[in-house]
Amino acid sequence: MSELLDLKLQREEVLLSAFLEMVRASDGDFGVIDRLAQASSDLESLQLVINFLASNPQGKSAFERYPRVGEVDLERLALLPTDTLGYAYANHMIQNGLKPLKIKPSTNDYEFLGAHITETHDVWHVVTGFNTSIIGEIQLEAFYVSQLQFSRFWLALIAKNLLKTVVYDIEHSTEYMDAIAEGWMLAKPAKPLFGIDWKTLWQSSLNDIRDSLNIKVQQ
Amino acid sequence: MSELLDLKLQREEVLLSAFLEMVRASDGDFGVIDRLAQASSDLESLQLVINFLASNPQGKSAFERYPRVGEVDLERLALLPTDTLGYAYANHMIQNGLKPLKIKPSTNDYEFLGAHITETHDVWHVVTGFNTSIIGEIQLEAFYVSQLQFSRFWLALIAKNLLKTVVYDIEHSTEYMDAIAEGWMLAKPAKPLFGIDWKTLWQSSLNDIRDSLNIKVQQ
Repeated sequence: MSELLDLKLQREEVLLSAFLEMVRASDGDFGVIDRLAQASSDLESLQLVINFLASNPQGKSAFERYPRVGEVDLERLALLPTDTLGYAYANHMIQNGLKPLKIKPSTNDYEFLGAHITETHDVWHVVTGFNTSIIGEIQLEAFYVSQLQFSRFWLALIAKNLLKTVVYDIEHSTEYMDAIAEGWMLAKPAKPLFGIDWKTLWQSSLNDIRDSLNIKVQQ
Repeated sequence: MSELLDLKLQREEVLLSAFLEMVRASDGDFGVIDRLAQASSDLESLQLVINFLASNPQGKSAFERYPRVGEVDLERLALLPTDTLGYAYANHMIQNGLKPLKIKPSTNDYEFLGAHITETHDVWHVVTGFNTSIIGEIQLEAFYVSQLQFSRFWLALIAKNLLKTVVYDIEHSTEYMDAIAEGWMLAKPAKPLFGIDWKTLWQSSLNDIRDSLNIKVQQ
């Protein structure tokens, strides 16, 4: 067997085993999420994601400039008018007991992809209107698959949630399938969120941002 | 550990292992499909499916009468007018090189559930307009989850197809997610197909049948 094929099979087995570990873990176990993220981050599929994201001007420019959110002062954002992105973001973070992540500067495209997706995750929650319940996370996972196209990680999370339902609580099948369809349908007409320099938009109206991204949130 | 809990854990492990075997198998391997069907057919979840299906008059009556398709003469059905269900079914079977299954009579609700779903599977293909490609099967799997609600088997097939995409061909993620959403959206407004005595409808217009079931197929 060639070394390349051997590596491919090894990678597949590591991914399947990280997936299975995640199915067995309880929701919100960050250790297993991290191992799944590692196992699904082969350079080949990350490159597919990067090529796809860089195929529009906003994404292309982001990979040239690596815009980062930087320090976020939630208490200051919470003082902005209530219709702004900044207020909605601060409110979301405080209500959920979350703190903005501190991620080191990016030195290459792969690092920027990971850092940008991670540090803007809660901005995506706010802009899509999907909350942090398991249903909201599934909706957002489907939204990510549409926006990133070739991400093993986000699609694995959907498969994981469906398999957990199959094995442990089949009563939730309809809610989970609804959530997938909702996230997917919201994403289909939406413009790319990847690469937006959110720190320049804290004072903008959340509704205007959603309109400009063609995101129609049911109020 | 109580015996009941022990059994539950055993069942979960058997289901996970049948699932993983199916992820590793090639599409259309009926041996592994059968093992997954067995592993996902615990009486508890089958009873949930039966209760749900019997909650409308058509399903209730089906569990009282166990209507079966019986012998099907494809060559005779193929002579019916081209707009009939019978013609469309015969055409579907012949084009795909399929033969109607012969399943023994049902003696209880669980057997009838399995036999009816199995022997009407290709009728569901025809009525929904979903073909037998992997995309068509995924569309139909999502349709089944909506129509049966608590079926571990059909939801496991969707999770399996998503995980195969994650591990082996991430390029297909969009097609597969589209297929899930399409099957789900077609099913949401549809009336129940379970329990219909299809052999009485061979001569009916396929379009009329779809209309009566509120199934809007894109031509």
